[in-house]
Amino acid sequence: MDDTTDPTERTAAGPTTAHHGPVTLINSFDVPEGRDDAFVELWTGTSRYFRQQVGYRSLRLHRALSPTARYRYVNVARWASAEEFATAHQSDEFFDLVGQPAWKEFPSNPSLYEVIVEHDA
Amino acid sequence: MDDTTDPTERTAAGPTTAHHGPVTLINSFDVPEGRDDAFVELWTGTSRYFRQQVGYRSLRLHRALSPTARYRYVNVARWASAEEFATAHQSDEFFDLVGQPAWKEFPSNPSLYEVIVEHDA
Repeated sequence: MDDTTDPTERTAAGPTTAHHGPVTLINSFDVPEGRDDAFVELWTGTSRYFRQQVGYRSLRLHRALSPTARYRYVNVARWASAEEFATAHQSDEFFDLVGQPAWKEFPSNPSLYEVIVEHDA
Repeated sequence: MDDTTDPTERTAAGPTTAHHGPVTLINSFDVPEGRDDAFVELWTGTSRYFRQQVGYRSLRLHRALSPTARYRYVNVARWASAEEFATAHQSDEFFDLVGQPAWKEFPSNPSLYEVIVEHDA
């Protein structure tokens, strides 16, 4: 998928067959130079909704250390299941949040993943 | 940065000013349909090197749940510092690994990040 500003495409596509177990959203954002504060404020307000949803587990918002990075911000969020992730993205409150005009400045590219290799030092 | 198959560009650009504290590599891979096993085998062999390096903390290899995802695989790896991350990417062994012809099939887009928001349910 290409980067999008369409509210109806701000949800990562789910699995095409039944999927059990935890899932990870990786959502990458384009943020113009000098617009970091505006982005973080908007993102934080939107993320407050997700933090209250059933199945939400954790999030990490990453900011690029180099200006040459393809995406300046990447959110990595874990959910208990693809089903609960999908449910959280179907409410009126969700569409109100991602439909805010301010979001048009920050295209994103959300995708849903499963962890297939996990290793800690 | 665009996706690359150039071994000299298989390292995420570091911070442009001094940076202290942990960093996260987010490395996204293009993998053609039907080539999952070949990719995972190659990636696993390469990741064995990183697991032994000073400053390496953890990795999670993610596989997309939907065929429409922009990137089929994403590695999220934590390092203790940008300096130790850079050192691990300057050895002859590193260049031998990423110079393997098999890697030409799998362009990637590595970028280095810092976590600026962290939340757990």
